Amino acid sequence: MKNQEPQSTAEKRLQEITALCKDRGFIFQSSEIYGGLKSSYDYGPLGVELKRNIMTSWWTEMVYSREDVVGLDAAIIMHPRVWEASGHRSSFSDPLVDCKLCKERFRADKAPKLSPGTPAIIRFEDKGRAKIAAEEIVKEYHVEIKRDDKEITGTTVGSCGYVCPNCGSPFLSAERQFNLMFRTFLGPVDPLTEVAQAIEKGQLQGLTGQDLRKKLEQIVDNATVYLRPETAQAMFVQFQNIQRSMSMKVPFGIAQMGKSFRNEITVKSFIFRSCEFEQMEMEFFCKPGTEDQWMEYWKDARIKWWRRYANEPNNFRFREHEKRELAFYAKACVDVEYLFPWGWDELEGIASRTNYDLQKHSEFSGKKLEYLDPETNEKFVPYVIEPAAGATRGVLAYINDALMEDEIPDAKGVPQKRTVLRLHPALAPIKVAVLPLLRKEGMPEKGRELAQMFWDAGIKTRYDETHAIGRRYRRHDEIGTPYCLTIDAQTMQDNTVTIRDRDTTKQDRISIHEAVAVVRERIGKKL
Amino acid sequence: MKNQEPQSTAEKRLQEITALCKDRGFIFQSSEIYGGLKSSYDYGPLGVELKRNIMTSWWTEMVYSREDVVGLDAAIIMHPRVWEASGHRSSFSDPLVDCKLCKERFRADKAPKLSPGTPAIIRFEDKGRAKIAAEEIVKEYHVEIKRDDKEITGTTVGSCGYVCPNCGSPFLSAERQFNLMFRTFLGPVDPLTEVAQAIEKGQLQGLTGQDLRKKLEQIVDNATVYLRPETAQAMFVQFQNIQRSMSMKVPFGIAQMGKSFRNEITVKSFIFRSCEFEQMEMEFFCKPGTEDQWMEYWKDARIKWWRRYANEPNNFRFREHEKRELAFYAKACVDVEYLFPWGWDELEGIASRTNYDLQKHSEFSGKKLEYLDPETNEKFVPYVIEPAAGATRGVLAYINDALMEDEIPDAKGVPQKRTVLRLHPALAPIKVAVLPLLRKEGMPEKGRELAQMFWDAGIKTRYDETHAIGRRYRRHDEIGTPYCLTIDAQTMQDNTVTIRDRDTTKQDRISIHEAVAVVRERIGKKL
Repeated sequence: MKNQEPQSTAEKRLQEITALCKDRGFIFQSSEIYGGLKSSYDYGPLGVELKRNIMTSWWTEMVYSREDVVGLDAAIIMHPRVWEASGHRSSFSDPLVDCKLCKERFRADKAPKLSPGTPAIIRFEDKGRAKIAAEEIVKEYHVEIKRDDKEITGTTVGSCGYVCPNCGSPFLSAERQFNLMFRTFLGPVDPLTEVAQAIEKGQLQGLTGQDLRKKLEQIVDNATVYLRPETAQAMFVQFQNIQRSMSMKVPFGIAQMGKSFRNEITVKSFIFRSCEFEQMEMEFFCKPGTEDQWMEYWKDARIKWWRRYANEPNNFRFREHEKRELAFYAKACVDVEYLFPWGWDELEGIASRTNYDLQKHSEFSGKKLEYLDPETNEKFVPYVIEPAAGATRGVLAYINDALMEDEIPDAKGVPQKRTVLRLHPALAPIKVAVLPLLRKEGMPEKGRELAQMFWDAGIKTRYDETHAIGRRYRRHDEIGTPYCLTIDAQTMQDNTVTIRDRDTTKQDRISIHEAVAVVRERIGKKL
Repeated sequence: MKNQEPQSTAEKRLQEITALCKDRGFIFQSSEIYGGLKSSYDYGPLGVELKRNIMTSWWTEMVYSREDVVGLDAAIIMHPRVWEASGHRSSFSDPLVDCKLCKERFRADKAPKLSPGTPAIIRFEDKGRAKIAAEEIVKEYHVEIKRDDKEITGTTVGSCGYVCPNCGSPFLSAERQFNLMFRTFLGPVDPLTEVAQAIEKGQLQGLTGQDLRKKLEQIVDNATVYLRPETAQAMFVQFQNIQRSMSMKVPFGIAQMGKSFRNEITVKSFIFRSCEFEQMEMEFFCKPGTEDQWMEYWKDARIKWWRRYANEPNNFRFREHEKRELAFYAKACVDVEYLFPWGWDELEGIASRTNYDLQKHSEFSGKKLEYLDPETNEKFVPYVIEPAAGATRGVLAYINDALMEDEIPDAKGVPQKRTVLRLHPALAPIKVAVLPLLRKEGMPEKGRELAQMFWDAGIKTRYDETHAIGRRYRRHDEIGTPYCLTIDAQTMQDNTVTIRDRDTTKQDRISIHEAVAVVRERIGKKL
C-alpha cells in the first residue's frame, strides 16, 4: 500500500484483522525471520485451534453424523495422469486456453486447426445451451449470428487458427503459458542433471523457441509430478476401491479435508488466496435423475452449517451461477458467499457435475468406473454433487464475523470501549481461562487445581495470574475465550468461583466441582 | 517379490496386513487406477479414522491436557534459507557429505581444502567426545592415532582433498548428489523457460560438467523452494512470534502435526517409509542445565502414550543411541522402537538437541532468538528436547499389534477360527455397529432409530442389515469395531438390545435409551 493513498474501509478492516492475528498468535507470515514467503502463512497457537475446530465440525457433520458419507485422506502428490484427466495439467510448450462459451479448458496445440477468418460452426449437445450461448455471443461480442436448433453459425475463426475442441467456439481466452500447479520431481534422478547431460550430448543443438521448450519438457517429463491443486480428484480416482471395500450403496459420499497448492502470488487479501490452503470437499454420488433433489439438499445443509457459527448469519448467502458461467458438463453451480471486508466473495462452491469426472478418469485410466445397483441390477455411472469448501477462507470469515468493538461498564459503571472476538464457543481456541484474583492467599494454588481439572478433561484452558483482573478479562475477550473462571476470597471459603460470560460480561457463582460440567454444558448448548 | 523365493514370516505378515488394508478400506495404493505411484498411499474410510484417532490422541495429550505446550500449523513450503540453516539443503553442484565421527552434514565445495595425504587434525570441544571418537577410529578404521586431550592426530586427508569443517575428520561419507527434499518452484516464471532462454542467449555455451550444472542451478535458484522434509524447523523459525504472542514462559513446548515429504522410493515395508508421511513433533524449550531432567520426563511420557493403546506393550521399547551415533551438537537421543514384522524399528526419536537449532536459525536469519527470563532478568538461548513421532508408522504399528487370529465358539459351541482386529476402542475407526437380527418385523426401522441416536451424538456408527448375523459380527471383528448392538425379537417388546464385546464376544442386554451412554462409558473406561 502506498503511503500517500487514503486507506479504504476494507483495507483498514483487513489491517485490523491481520494485526490481531499476528499479535495474538492466530496467524503469522510464513518464515517471517527470513523475510517471509509471499502468500504463505503459518497458523499459530490460536489459529491452529480455530482452524481445527472448523474442520472438526465439518468432519463430524459430514462423516460422523450420518451413515452415507465416508472419509478419505489421499496423498498430495498423485499420478500425473490424474491431472491430464481433470484438465489441470499443461506444460510450457502446451499452452492452455479456456473457451468463453462452454468453459472447456484445452491445450492450444491439440485443438482443431482451421484457417483464420474461415467460418466457425458452434454446436451444443442441447438446444437450451445453444440458445444461451447465442444470446451471450450477441450480448458480449456484438456478432450477428444464426442459430439452427443446436448449431450456431456466423462467427469466424480467430487469428490463433483454432477453435474450442468441445463446442467449436472461436471465443477463447488468451493462451496461458503459466500453470498454477506446483511441479516437482519424483525419483532418484534430478531433472537438472538430465538437462545438463542433454546439453553435453548436443541433444538441444539448433533448437529454439517452442521446439526447445518442448524438448526440455520431454527431458523432465518422466519424473514430473504435481502438488494437488484441489482435494476433489482423489475421490473419483478411489471411487471404486472405496465403494467396494465399504460396500457403499448409491447414494453415498466421500469426504476429504487437507492441503491443496496453487502457485498464485498475491498479498492483497491476507489468507483468502494463499499458495497453500486447506479444503473440505465432498463428492456425493447419486443416481442420474436424482441430482437436482440432492443439489437442493446439500445447498440447504451447507449454508445452515456456515450460519450456525456466525454472529451475522445474513453475511452468508447463495450466489447461483448463471448458465453462461457454467462449465459445459455442469448442470448447476451455486456459491456460498461471505461478506468479506472487500465485498461478497466465495467460501464454498456447490456444483452439480453430472458423471463428467468419473467418465474422464475412466477414459484416461482405461478402468470402468461404474456402479452396479444390487437391487435393480442396473449399471450406471453415478452423477455427482460436490460441496467444496475452503477451510482457510472459513478462518478469515469467522474472524471477521467475530471481531468487534463494544462498550462495557468498568468498575464504576462508566462505559469503556473494548475489543472482543465473539467466536462461537465451539470454534473458540481457548475455552476457559482460570484467573486467581490475587497472587497470594492460596488463590494461585486453588486456580491451578481448577485448571488441572480442565486439562484432565482435555479442554484447552489457560491459567493466567499476571496483571490486574480487568486487564486479564480484556485479554481473553480479545482472543475469544468464552468463559473466565475467577478464584477470589470467597472461593477460599466455600469452593465456589465466578464464571464470566465473554459476550454479556455477566458473572454467576458456581461450585468448583461442577465447573467442568457447567462449561461443557454451556459450550454444548450453543452448538 | 520373486515367485520362486520362499516367503519369510515377515513378508507373509506384511502381505496379510497389506491385503486387509486394501480389502477393508484402510489403505490403498495412491492413484491405483493409473497403475499407482510408488511409495505413495491413500488412507481409505477406515484408515483415515485410525490415523485421525492416533493424531487426535497425541494432540489432546500434548496440547489440551497441559498448560505448557501450544500448537502450530506452519506452511509445508518454507523459505529456502530455512533448509540451509538446518543443513537439509544441497543442490546438484553442491554435493552433501556426512562426517562419520561428529555427524556434521556439509557441502563438499565449502569444506576446508587440504592436500590429499597430508596430516588431518581432529578436534572436539570436549574431552569425552574426543575419547569416544578416538576409540571409534581405532575400532572401525584400524588407524593408529594419538590423542592429546581434545585433539586427535595420526590420520591423513583423503583423496577428496577436504575434511569435516566441524571436527576436521577425514572419515567421511561419499558425496551425495541426490537431495531427499522435493524441489518445486514458486512464482509466475517457470524455470524451464528460463533455462530455454539461457540456452538461446548462449549463456551455457562451452560449459560442461560441474560448471554447467552449477550454472543451471543458478538459473532456477531464484524460484526454488522445497517441500519440508520434517515439521520440526517451523517451531524454531516461529519460536519468537509464539513465545511473545502467547506470553509463554520457559519451559514450554510447541507442537505440530502434519505432512512431510522425502523423495525416497522403496516399496519394501508398506507405509513405513513413504514419500509423504505424517509427523507429530514437539520442541520443548527449557533452561540450559535442566535438559537432562526434561529428557527423562519426555521419555517416560512418550513411551507411556504409545503403550496405552497396545495389546502388547512390550513390543514398544527404548533404544538409547550410542555416543558415536549422535550428531555433534546432540547431548542424547533415544528411539521409541516397535517390533515390526521385520524386527525392531523406529517409531519416534526423542533428542536432546541443546540450543543448536535456535542458534543456527539466529545465525542464518540475523535475528536474535533468545529468551528473557522475566523473573531473573537473565537472557539465554533455550535448550531443546524434541520428541518426534511418526503418525504414519503408528498406524502400521497399531494395525500389526491388533491383527490376530483366535478361536471363538460358534452357535453349537464348536471353536471356529476368526480374524479380529483388536484395536483399542479409542483408535477403532467405527465405534458401533447396529445390526437388526432380521430384515422384517420392524427390526430395520428400530435399528435405524438406534443408529440415528449415535449419529446425532457424532459417534461413527455403521448400520448393517445384510447377511446372517454371524457373518456381520465377523465382518466387524475384522475391522476392529468394538461394540455390536443387535436388535432382536425381544427388542421389539421391551426396547432392550444386546451389546456384544469384540474381544470377549460376550453379550449383555441394555436399554436402547442408555445405549449411547453405555458405549461412551465403555470406550472411555479403556482410555
